[in-house]
Amino acid sequence: MASTQAAKRQKSTKDVPYELIYWPGLPGRGEHIRLALEEAGASYTDSAQQKDGINVVLAQINPQNLGDASNPPPCAPPILKHGDLTISQTPNILLYLAPRLGLVPPTEEDEDAIYKVNQPGADGAGRALERGTRLPPSDCDGLKTEAKRKSGDYIANRLPKFLGYFERVLQGEASKGGKWLYGGNLTYADLVLFQCLDGVKFAFPKATGRIEKEGKFGKVFELHRAVQERPRIKEYLASEKRQKYSLGIYRHYPELDEE
Amino acid sequence: MASTQAAKRQKSTKDVPYELIYWPGLPGRGEHIRLALEEAGASYTDSAQQKDGINVVLAQINPQNLGDASNPPPCAPPILKHGDLTISQTPNILLYLAPRLGLVPPTEEDEDAIYKVNQPGADGAGRALERGTRLPPSDCDGLKTEAKRKSGDYIANRLPKFLGYFERVLQGEASKGGKWLYGGNLTYADLVLFQCLDGVKFAFPKATGRIEKEGKFGKVFELHRAVQERPRIKEYLASEKRQKYSLGIYRHYPELDEE
Repeated sequence: MASTQAAKRQKSTKDVPYELIYWPGLPGRGEHIRLALEEAGASYTDSAQQKDGINVVLAQINPQNLGDASNPPPCAPPILKHGDLTISQTPNILLYLAPRLGLVPPTEEDEDAIYKVNQPGADGAGRALERGTRLPPSDCDGLKTEAKRKSGDYIANRLPKFLGYFERVLQGEASKGGKWLYGGNLTYADLVLFQCLDGVKFAFPKATGRIEKEGKFGKVFELHRAVQERPRIKEYLASEKRQKYSLGIYRHYPELDEE
Repeated sequence: MASTQAAKRQKSTKDVPYELIYWPGLPGRGEHIRLALEEAGASYTDSAQQKDGINVVLAQINPQNLGDASNPPPCAPPILKHGDLTISQTPNILLYLAPRLGLVPPTEEDEDAIYKVNQPGADGAGRALERGTRLPPSDCDGLKTEAKRKSGDYIANRLPKFLGYFERVLQGEASKGGKWLYGGNLTYADLVLFQCLDGVKFAFPKATGRIEKEGKFGKVFELHRAVQERPRIKEYLASEKRQKYSLGIYRHYPELDEE
Protein backbone atom coordinates (compact mmCIF):
# COMPACT_ATOMS: atom_id res chain seq x y z
CA MET A 1 0.00 0.00 0.00
CA ALA A 2 2.77 2.39 0.97
CA SER A 3 4.47 1.99 -2.40
CA THR A 4 1.19 2.51 -4.30
CA GLN A 5 0.65 5.71 -2.35
CA ALA A 6 4.21 6.82 -2.98
CA ALA A 7 3.87 6.09 -6.69
CA LYS A 8 0.63 8.01 -6.75
CA ARG A 9 2.19 10.99 -5.01
CA GLN A 10 5.12 10.82 -7.39
CA LYS A 11 2.79 10.94 -10.34
CA SER A 12 0.63 13.72 -8.94
CA THR A 13 3.43 16.03 -7.91
CA LYS A 14 4.05 18.34 -10.78
CA ASP A 15 7.78 18.78 -11.16
CA VAL A 16 7.62 22.58 -11.15
CA PRO A 17 7.97 25.20 -8.41
CA TYR A 18 4.90 26.33 -6.49
CA GLU A 19 3.65 29.82 -7.36
CA LEU A 20 2.23 31.85 -4.50
CA ILE A 21 0.11 34.80 -5.55
CA TYR A 22 -0.50 37.31 -2.78
CA TRP A 23 -0.53 41.07 -2.20
CA PRO A 24 2.93 42.60 -1.81
CA GLY A 25 3.61 44.81 1.20
CA LEU A 26 2.42 42.85 4.23
CA PRO A 27 2.56 39.24 5.48
CA GLY A 28 -1.24 38.74 5.62
CA ARG A 29 -2.69 35.32 5.01
CA GLY A 30 0.00 34.64 2.42
CA GLU A 31 2.33 34.13 5.36
CA HIS A 32 0.63 30.87 6.34
CA ILE A 33 1.53 29.50 2.93
CA ARG A 34 5.06 30.95 2.97
CA LEU A 35 5.90 29.40 6.34
CA ALA A 36 4.85 25.95 5.10
CA LEU A 37 6.93 26.30 1.94
CA GLU A 38 9.92 27.68 3.86
CA GLU A 39 9.83 25.01 6.58
CA ALA A 40 9.84 22.34 3.88
CA GLY A 41 12.60 24.03 1.88
CA ALA A 42 10.30 23.95 -1.15
CA SER A 43 11.02 25.76 -4.37
CA TYR A 44 8.49 28.55 -4.95
CA THR A 45 7.91 31.95 -6.49
CA ASP A 46 6.04 34.72 -4.64
CA SER A 47 4.24 37.62 -6.30
CA ALA A 48 5.03 39.72 -3.22
CA GLN A 49 8.68 39.59 -4.28
CA GLN A 50 7.98 40.48 -7.91
CA LYS A 51 8.12 43.98 -9.30
CA ASP A 52 4.65 43.82 -10.87
CA GLY A 53 3.32 41.50 -8.16
CA ILE A 54 0.21 43.54 -7.59
CA ASN A 55 -0.83 43.10 -11.22
CA VAL A 56 -0.33 39.36 -10.96
CA VAL A 57 -2.84 39.39 -8.08
CA LEU A 58 -5.27 41.73 -9.85
CA ALA A 59 -5.31 39.57 -13.02
CA GLN A 60 -6.37 36.57 -10.94
CA ILE A 61 -9.25 38.30 -9.16
CA ASN A 62 -10.41 40.28 -12.17
CA PRO A 63 -14.21 39.90 -12.54
CA GLN A 64 -13.57 38.85 -16.14
CA ASN A 65 -11.60 35.82 -14.99
CA LEU A 66 -13.82 32.75 -15.30
CA GLY A 67 -11.07 30.23 -14.58
CA ASP A 68 -10.44 27.53 -17.17
CA ALA A 69 -11.69 24.09 -18.15
CA SER A 70 -10.45 22.45 -14.98
CA ASN A 71 -10.10 25.32 -12.46
CA PRO A 72 -12.89 27.52 -11.12
CA PRO A 73 -11.84 31.18 -10.80
CA PRO A 74 -10.05 31.89 -7.51
CA CYS A 75 -12.03 33.73 -4.86
CA ALA A 76 -9.32 35.89 -3.29
CA PRO A 77 -5.60 35.78 -2.54
CA PRO A 78 -3.70 33.82 -1.37
CA ILE A 79 -3.80 31.80 -4.59
CA LEU A 80 -1.55 28.85 -5.34
CA LYS A 81 -0.62 27.73 -8.83
CA HIS A 82 1.07 24.38 -9.23
CA GLY A 83 1.45 23.10 -12.75
CA ASP A 84 -2.04 23.29 -14.26
CA LEU A 85 -3.78 23.60 -10.89
CA THR A 86 -4.97 26.96 -9.52
CA ILE A 87 -6.58 27.03 -6.06
CA SER A 88 -7.42 29.66 -3.47
CA GLN A 89 -8.39 29.95 0.22
CA THR A 90 -5.67 29.63 2.83
CA PRO A 91 -6.87 26.41 4.55
CA ASN A 92 -7.53 24.81 1.19
CA ILE A 93 -4.03 25.59 -0.09
CA LEU A 94 -2.54 24.22 3.13
CA LEU A 95 -4.56 21.01 2.71
CA TYR A 96 -3.09 20.61 -0.75
CA LEU A 97 0.47 21.43 0.30
CA ALA A 98 0.70 19.63 3.64
CA PRO A 99 0.97 16.03 2.36
CA ARG A 100 3.30 17.15 -0.44
CA LEU A 101 5.57 19.03 1.96
CA GLY A 102 5.56 16.39 4.71
CA LEU A 103 3.69 18.69 7.10
CA VAL A 104 1.03 16.15 8.07
CA PRO A 105 1.46 12.45 8.92
CA PRO A 106 1.08 10.33 5.76
CA THR A 107 -2.29 8.63 5.22
CA GLU A 108 -0.75 5.16 5.20
CA GLU A 109 0.55 5.70 8.76
CA ASP A 110 -2.33 7.68 10.28
CA GLU A 111 -5.43 7.47 8.14
CA ASP A 112 -7.44 10.42 9.45
CA ALA A 113 -4.54 12.60 10.58
CA ILE A 114 -5.32 15.31 8.06
CA TYR A 115 -8.73 15.94 9.65
CA LYS A 116 -7.23 16.09 13.12
CA VAL A 117 -4.45 18.43 12.09
CA ASN A 118 -6.79 20.53 10.00
CA GLN A 119 -9.13 21.01 12.94
CA PRO A 120 -6.92 23.14 15.18
CA GLY A 121 -4.68 24.17 12.35
CA ALA A 122 -6.57 25.42 9.43
CA ASP A 123 -8.95 28.07 10.18
CA GLY A 124 -11.62 28.62 12.75
CA ALA A 125 -9.55 28.80 15.89
CA GLY A 126 -6.71 30.66 14.25
CA ARG A 127 -9.06 33.20 12.82
CA ALA A 128 -10.79 33.52 16.15
CA LEU A 129 -7.42 34.21 17.73
CA GLU A 130 -6.71 36.98 15.28
CA ARG A 131 -10.20 38.44 15.28
CA GLY A 132 -9.52 41.16 17.83
CA THR A 133 -6.72 42.81 15.96
CA ARG A 134 -8.45 44.60 13.14
CA LEU A 135 -10.20 47.36 15.01
CA PRO A 136 -8.78 50.69 13.99
CA PRO A 137 -9.29 53.48 16.49
CA SER A 138 -11.18 56.31 14.91
CA ASP A 139 -11.18 60.06 15.12
CA CYS A 140 -14.87 59.89 15.77
CA ASP A 141 -15.16 59.67 19.52
CA GLY A 142 -18.01 57.20 19.55
CA LEU A 143 -16.15 54.68 17.39
CA LYS A 144 -12.94 55.21 19.34
CA THR A 145 -14.67 54.23 22.56
CA GLU A 146 -16.21 51.27 20.74
CA ALA A 147 -12.79 50.14 19.42
CA LYS A 148 -11.29 50.40 22.91
CA ARG A 149 -14.22 48.44 24.37
CA LYS A 150 -13.91 45.73 21.74
CA SER A 151 -10.15 45.32 22.08
CA GLY A 152 -10.53 45.27 25.88
CA ASP A 153 -13.11 42.53 25.50
CA TYR A 154 -10.87 40.63 23.07
CA ILE A 155 -7.91 40.78 25.49
CA ALA A 156 -10.00 39.84 28.51
CA ASN A 157 -12.14 37.09 26.99
CA ARG A 158 -11.58 35.96 23.45
CA LEU A 159 -7.79 35.81 23.51
CA PRO A 160 -7.53 33.68 26.69
CA LYS A 161 -10.40 31.50 25.44
CA PHE A 162 -8.56 30.55 22.28
CA LEU A 163 -5.11 30.40 23.87
CA GLY A 164 -6.79 28.09 26.37
CA TYR A 165 -8.10 25.91 23.58
CA PHE A 166 -4.67 25.47 22.04
CA GLU A 167 -3.13 24.88 25.48
CA ARG A 168 -5.68 22.09 25.98
CA VAL A 169 -4.78 20.56 22.62
CA LEU A 170 -1.13 20.59 23.70
CA GLN A 171 -2.00 19.06 27.07
CA GLY A 172 -4.07 16.33 25.41
CA GLU A 173 -2.73 12.84 24.81
CA ALA A 174 -3.12 13.14 21.04
CA SER A 175 -0.31 15.73 21.01
CA LYS A 176 2.06 12.97 22.19
CA GLY A 177 4.04 15.12 24.58
CA GLY A 178 2.74 18.64 24.13
CA LYS A 179 5.47 20.17 22.06
CA TRP A 180 3.44 20.17 18.83
CA LEU A 181 -0.34 20.18 18.36
CA TYR A 182 -0.73 16.69 16.94
CA GLY A 183 1.13 13.41 16.93
CA GLY A 184 4.51 14.46 18.32
CA ASN A 185 5.91 16.05 15.16
CA LEU A 186 5.59 19.50 13.64
CA THR A 187 2.64 19.86 11.26
CA TYR A 188 1.32 22.83 9.32
CA ALA A 189 -1.11 23.47 12.19
CA ASP A 190 1.85 24.49 14.36
CA LEU A 191 2.97 26.96 11.71
CA VAL A 192 -0.53 28.46 11.53
CA LEU A 193 -0.69 28.81 15.31
CA PHE A 194 2.78 30.36 15.34
CA GLN A 195 1.78 32.96 12.75
CA CYS A 196 -1.54 33.85 14.40
CA LEU A 197 0.10 34.27 17.80
CA ASP A 198 2.99 36.16 16.27
CA GLY A 199 0.55 38.63 14.76
CA VAL A 200 -1.36 39.02 18.02
CA LYS A 201 1.94 39.60 19.85
CA PHE A 202 2.69 42.35 17.34
CA ALA A 203 -0.76 43.91 17.76
CA PHE A 204 -0.90 43.72 21.57
CA PRO A 205 2.69 43.48 22.86
CA LYS A 206 1.82 44.55 26.40
CA ALA A 207 -1.22 42.33 26.84
CA THR A 208 0.49 39.26 25.37
CA GLY A 209 3.63 39.99 27.40
CA ARG A 210 1.59 40.04 30.60
CA ILE A 211 -0.30 36.86 29.60
CA GLU A 212 2.92 35.03 28.75
CA LYS A 213 4.45 35.98 32.10
CA GLU A 214 1.41 34.69 33.98
CA GLY A 215 2.31 31.25 32.62
CA LYS A 216 -1.19 29.91 32.10
CA PHE A 217 -0.61 29.12 28.43
CA GLY A 218 3.02 28.11 28.69
CA LYS A 219 2.87 25.37 26.08
CA VAL A 220 1.42 27.70 23.45
CA PHE A 221 4.15 30.32 23.95
CA GLU A 222 6.74 27.53 24.01
CA LEU A 223 5.43 26.32 20.64
CA HIS A 224 5.78 29.86 19.28
CA ARG A 225 9.44 29.91 20.34
CA ALA A 226 10.06 26.39 19.02
CA VAL A 227 8.74 27.30 15.55
CA GLN A 228 10.86 30.46 15.57
CA GLU A 229 13.95 28.31 16.22
CA ARG A 230 13.40 25.84 13.37
CA PRO A 231 16.54 26.39 11.26
CA ARG A 232 14.75 27.20 8.00
CA ILE A 233 12.10 29.35 9.69
CA LYS A 234 14.76 31.22 11.64
CA GLU A 235 16.66 31.98 8.47
CA TYR A 236 13.47 33.02 6.69
CA LEU A 237 12.31 35.33 9.51
CA ALA A 238 15.68 37.10 9.46
CA SER A 239 15.60 37.52 5.68
CA GLU A 240 14.15 40.33 3.58
CA LYS A 241 11.48 37.91 2.37
CA ARG A 242 9.70 38.22 5.74
CA GLN A 243 7.63 41.35 5.24
CA LYS A 244 6.84 43.71 8.10
CA TYR A 245 3.39 43.82 9.69
CA SER A 246 1.38 46.74 8.41
CA LEU A 247 -2.31 47.67 8.15
CA GLY A 248 -3.34 44.11 7.38
CA ILE A 249 -4.81 41.41 9.59
CA TYR A 250 -2.54 42.38 12.48
CA ARG A 251 -2.44 46.06 13.38
CA HIS A 252 -0.68 47.67 16.27
CA TYR A 253 -2.52 50.59 17.84
CA PRO A 254 -0.79 51.37 21.16
CA GLU A 255 -3.97 52.98 22.52
CA LEU A 256 -5.87 49.67 22.10
CA ASP A 257 -3.28 47.61 23.98
CA GLU A 258 -3.13 47.38 27.76
CA GLU A 259 -1.57 50.26 29.71
CA MET B 1 -6.04 1.68 -8.76
CA ALA B 2 -9.79 2.14 -8.51
CA SER B 3 -10.22 -1.16 -6.69
CA THR B 4 -7.36 -0.39 -4.27
CA GLN B 5 -9.03 2.91 -3.48
CA ALA B 6 -12.39 1.23 -3.04
CA ALA B 7 -10.88 -1.40 -0.74
CA LYS B 8 -9.23 1.31 1.25
CA ARG B 9 -12.45 3.26 1.57
CA GLN B 10 -14.25 0.09 2.57
CA LYS B 11 -11.74 -0.54 5.29
CA SER B 12 -11.71 3.05 6.53
CA THR B 13 -15.47 3.52 6.65
CA LYS B 14 -16.58 2.61 10.11
CA ASP B 15 -19.77 0.64 9.86
CA VAL B 16 -21.65 2.83 12.33
CA PRO B 17 -23.92 5.86 11.93
CA TYR B 18 -22.43 9.33 11.92
CA GLU B 19 -23.03 11.34 15.11
CA LEU B 20 -23.57 15.06 14.63
CA ILE B 21 -23.14 17.13 17.79
CA TYR B 22 -24.59 20.63 17.52
CA TRP B 23 -26.69 23.09 19.55
CA PRO B 24 -30.40 22.36 19.49
CA GLY B 25 -32.78 25.15 18.56
CA LEU B 26 -31.44 26.68 15.34
CA PRO B 27 -29.93 25.42 12.08
CA GLY B 28 -26.59 27.23 12.47
CA ARG B 29 -23.46 25.71 11.03
CA GLY B 30 -24.74 22.25 11.88
CA GLU B 31 -27.03 22.64 8.89
CA HIS B 32 -24.13 22.40 6.45
CA ILE B 33 -23.39 18.94 7.85
CA ARG B 34 -27.06 17.90 7.98
CA LEU B 35 -27.68 18.79 4.34
CA ALA B 36 -24.73 16.64 3.24
CA LEU B 37 -25.92 13.70 5.32
CA GLU B 38 -29.53 14.12 4.15
CA GLU B 39 -28.65 14.45 0.45
CA ALA B 40 -26.64 11.23 0.69
CA GLY B 41 -29.36 9.43 2.64
CA ALA B 42 -26.76 8.63 5.31
CA SER B 43 -27.61 7.17 8.68
CA TYR B 44 -26.87 9.66 11.47
CA THR B 45 -27.85 10.85 14.91
CA ASP B 46 -28.17 14.54 15.75
CA SER B 47 -27.86 16.01 19.25
CA ALA B 48 -30.29 18.74 18.19
CA GLN B 49 -33.00 16.06 18.08
CA GLN B 50 -32.10 14.58 21.46
CA LYS B 51 -33.74 15.55 24.72
CA ASP B 52 -30.46 16.27 26.51
CA GLY B 53 -28.75 17.43 23.33
CA ILE B 54 -27.38 20.58 24.91
CA ASN B 55 -25.50 18.54 27.51
CA VAL B 56 -23.99 16.38 24.78
CA VAL B 57 -22.60 19.58 23.25
CA LEU B 58 -21.44 21.00 26.59
CA ALA B 59 -19.59 17.79 27.52
CA GLN B 60 -17.59 18.04 24.29
CA ILE B 61 -16.54 21.66 24.73
CA ASN B 62 -15.95 21.42 28.49
CA PRO B 63 -12.57 22.98 29.34
CA GLN B 64 -11.74 19.74 31.15
CA ASN B 65 -12.02 17.77 27.92
CA LEU B 66 -8.51 17.06 26.65
CA GLY B 67 -9.60 14.70 23.89
CA ASP B 68 -8.13 11.20 23.89
CA ALA B 69 -5.06 9.34 22.66
CA SER B 70 -5.91 9.82 19.01
CA ASN B 71 -8.26 12.84 18.95
CA PRO B 72 -7.43 16.40 20.00
CA PRO B 73 -10.29 18.06 21.91
CA PRO B 74 -12.87 19.63 19.58
CA CYS B 75 -12.78 23.41 19.26
CA ALA B 76 -16.50 24.16 18.91
CA PRO B 77 -19.67 22.63 17.46
CA PRO B 78 -20.46 21.30 14.94
CA ILE B 79 -18.59 18.17 16.00
CA LEU B 80 -18.71 14.85 14.16
CA LYS B 81 -18.11 11.51 15.77
CA HIS B 82 -17.65 8.52 13.53
CA GLY B 83 -16.49 5.35 15.19
CA ASP B 84 -13.41 6.30 17.19
CA LEU B 85 -12.89 9.57 15.31
CA THR B 86 -13.98 12.94 16.73
CA ILE B 87 -13.46 16.06 14.60
CA SER B 88 -14.73 19.63 14.58
CA GLN B 89 -14.88 22.69 12.30
CA THR B 90 -17.54 22.74 9.59
CA PRO B 91 -15.24 22.73 6.52
CA ASN B 92 -13.10 20.03 8.08
CA ILE B 93 -16.10 17.79 8.75
CA LEU B 94 -17.31 18.32 5.18
CA LEU B 95 -13.88 17.37 3.86
CA TYR B 96 -14.10 14.12 5.80
CA LEU B 97 -17.68 13.37 4.79
CA ALA B 98 -17.67 14.42 1.13
CA PRO B 99 -15.71 11.46 -0.33
CA ARG B 100 -17.59 9.03 1.91
CA LEU B 101 -20.98 10.43 0.88
CA GLY B 102 -20.19 10.76 -2.83
CA LEU B 103 -20.39 14.55 -2.67
CA VAL B 104 -17.08 15.20 -4.42
CA PRO B 105 -15.67 13.49 -7.55
CA PRO B 106 -13.56 10.47 -6.53
CA THR B 107 -9.77 10.98 -6.50
CA GLU B 108 -9.21 8.24 -9.06
CA GLU B 109 -11.33 10.16 -11.58
CA ASP B 110 -10.35 13.72 -10.78
CA GLU B 111 -7.22 13.87 -8.67
CA ASP B 112 -7.39 17.40 -7.28
CA ALA B 113 -11.18 17.82 -7.32
CA ILE B 114 -11.42 18.08 -3.55
CA TYR B 115 -9.31 21.26 -3.58
CA LYS B 116 -11.38 22.79 -6.34
CA VAL B 117 -14.68 21.95 -4.69
CA ASN B 118 -13.39 22.98 -1.28
CA GLN B 119 -12.39 26.38 -2.59
CA PRO B 120 -15.81 27.83 -3.31
CA GLY B 121 -17.53 25.37 -1.06
CA ALA B 122 -16.01 25.16 2.27
CA ASP B 123 -15.63 28.36 3.96
CA GLY B 124 -14.26 31.73 3.03
CA ALA B 125 -16.76 32.79 0.41
CA GLY B 126 -19.71 31.25 2.19
CA ARG B 127 -18.81 32.97 5.40
CA ALA B 128 -18.29 36.21 3.54
CA LEU B 129 -21.76 35.84 2.11
CA GLU B 130 -23.25 35.40 5.54
CA ARG B 131 -21.12 38.04 7.26
CA GLY B 132 -23.70 40.83 7.02
CA THR B 133 -26.45 39.04 8.83
CA ARG B 134 -25.34 39.10 12.42
CA LEU B 135 -25.76 42.75 13.23
CA PRO B 136 -28.45 43.15 15.81
CA PRO B 137 -30.04 46.58 15.93
CA SER B 138 -29.64 48.08 19.34
CA ASP B 139 -31.63 50.26 21.67
CA CYS B 140 -28.66 52.53 21.85
CA ASP B 141 -29.13 55.04 19.05
CA GLY B 142 -25.49 55.17 18.04
CA LEU B 143 -25.26 51.43 17.55
CA LYS B 144 -28.60 51.31 15.77
CA THR B 145 -27.36 53.77 13.19
CA GLU B 146 -24.16 51.75 12.92
CA ALA B 147 -26.10 48.49 12.39
CA LYS B 148 -28.21 50.11 9.68
CA ARG B 149 -25.08 51.53 8.02
CA LYS B 150 -23.36 48.15 8.10
CA SER B 151 -26.30 46.18 6.75
CA GLY B 152 -26.79 48.82 4.05
CA ASP B 153 -23.15 48.42 3.10
CA TYR B 154 -23.49 44.64 3.14
CA ILE B 155 -26.51 44.73 0.82
CA ALA B 156 -24.96 47.28 -1.52
CA ASN B 157 -21.42 45.91 -1.73
CA ARG B 158 -20.52 42.68 -0.01
CA LEU B 159 -23.58 40.65 -1.00
CA PRO B 160 -23.35 41.41 -4.75
CA LYS B 161 -19.60 40.91 -4.64
CA PHE B 162 -19.92 37.35 -3.35
CA LEU B 163 -23.02 36.50 -5.37
CA GLY B 164 -20.96 37.74 -8.31
CA TYR B 165 -18.13 35.41 -7.40
CA PHE B 166 -20.38 32.36 -7.33
CA GLU B 167 -22.08 33.47 -10.56
CA ARG B 168 -18.63 33.60 -12.18
CA VAL B 169 -17.82 30.11 -10.91
CA LEU B 170 -21.07 28.90 -12.49
CA GLN B 171 -20.30 30.70 -15.74
CA GLY B 172 -16.81 29.21 -15.85
CA GLU B 173 -15.93 26.19 -17.95
CA ALA B 174 -14.94 24.11 -14.93
CA SER B 175 -18.60 24.04 -13.84
CA LYS B 176 -19.37 22.04 -17.02
CA GLY B 177 -22.64 23.73 -17.80
CA GLY B 178 -23.32 26.07 -14.90
CA LYS B 179 -25.92 24.13 -13.00
CA TRP B 180 -23.54 23.10 -10.21
CA LEU B 181 -20.34 24.80 -9.03
CA TYR B 182 -17.86 22.15 -10.16
CA GLY B 183 -17.68 19.37 -12.68
CA GLY B 184 -21.30 19.08 -13.77
CA ASN B 185 -22.58 17.15 -10.75
CA LEU B 186 -23.81 18.24 -7.33
CA THR B 187 -21.06 18.45 -4.70
CA TYR B 188 -21.12 19.52 -1.10
CA ALA B 189 -20.09 23.02 -2.24
CA ASP B 190 -23.54 23.41 -3.80
CA LEU B 191 -25.18 22.47 -0.51
CA VAL B 192 -23.04 25.01 1.35
CA LEU B 193 -23.93 27.75 -1.14
CA PHE B 194 -27.61 26.79 -0.91
CA GLN B 195 -27.57 27.07 2.86
CA CYS B 196 -25.67 30.38 2.97
CA LEU B 197 -27.99 31.95 0.42
CA ASP B 198 -31.03 30.47 2.11
CA GLY B 199 -30.00 32.14 5.35
CA VAL B 200 -29.34 35.47 3.66
CA LYS B 201 -32.78 35.23 1.99
CA PHE B 202 -34.28 34.73 5.43
CA ALA B 203 -32.36 37.68 6.90
CA PHE B 204 -32.98 40.12 4.04
CA PRO B 205 -36.09 38.95 2.13
CA LYS B 206 -36.71 42.30 0.44
CA ALA B 207 -33.13 42.95 -0.65
CA THR B 208 -32.60 39.41 -1.94
CA GLY B 209 -36.03 39.47 -3.64
CA ARG B 210 -35.05 42.63 -5.48
CA ILE B 211 -31.61 41.25 -6.40
CA GLU B 212 -33.11 37.99 -7.68
CA LYS B 213 -35.61 39.88 -9.84
CA GLU B 214 -32.85 42.00 -11.37
CA GLY B 215 -31.48 38.74 -12.82
CA LYS B 216 -27.77 39.51 -12.54
CA PHE B 217 -27.03 36.39 -10.51
CA GLY B 218 -29.54 34.09 -12.17
CA LYS B 219 -27.41 30.96 -12.01
CA VAL B 220 -26.87 31.31 -8.26
CA PHE B 221 -30.58 31.63 -7.51
CA GLU B 222 -31.26 28.77 -9.94
CA LEU B 223 -28.81 26.60 -7.98
CA HIS B 224 -30.67 27.49 -4.77
CA ARG B 225 -33.92 26.27 -6.32
CA ALA B 226 -32.29 23.14 -7.78
CA VAL B 227 -30.93 22.10 -4.36
CA GLN B 228 -34.34 22.73 -2.80
CA GLU B 229 -35.88 20.36 -5.34
CA ARG B 230 -33.50 17.43 -4.74
CA PRO B 231 -35.90 14.72 -3.54
CA ARG B 232 -34.15 13.98 -0.24
CA ILE B 233 -33.46 17.66 0.50
CA LYS B 234 -37.07 18.55 -0.28
CA GLU B 235 -38.34 15.92 2.09
CA TYR B 236 -35.88 17.02 4.75
CA LEU B 237 -36.76 20.72 4.45
CA ALA B 238 -40.44 19.89 4.89
CA SER B 239 -39.77 17.73 7.95
CA GLU B 240 -39.59 18.66 11.61
CA LYS B 241 -35.87 17.97 11.52
CA ARG B 242 -35.32 21.25 9.65
CA GLN B 243 -35.16 23.75 12.50
CA LYS B 244 -36.37 27.32 12.12
CA TYR B 245 -33.95 30.21 11.79
CA SER B 246 -33.56 32.05 15.06
CA LEU B 247 -30.96 34.32 16.68
CA GLY B 248 -28.06 32.42 15.16
CA ILE B 249 -25.92 33.11 12.13
CA TYR B 250 -28.95 34.34 10.15
CA ARG B 251 -31.14 36.89 11.87
CA HIS B 252 -34.07 38.73 10.42
CA TYR B 253 -34.43 42.34 11.57
CA PRO B 254 -36.98 44.01 9.27
CA GLU B 255 -35.50 47.44 10.01
CA LEU B 256 -32.13 46.35 8.62
CA ASP B 257 -33.59 45.07 5.33
CA GLU B 258 -34.41 47.32 2.39
CA GLU B 259 -37.62 49.35 2.50
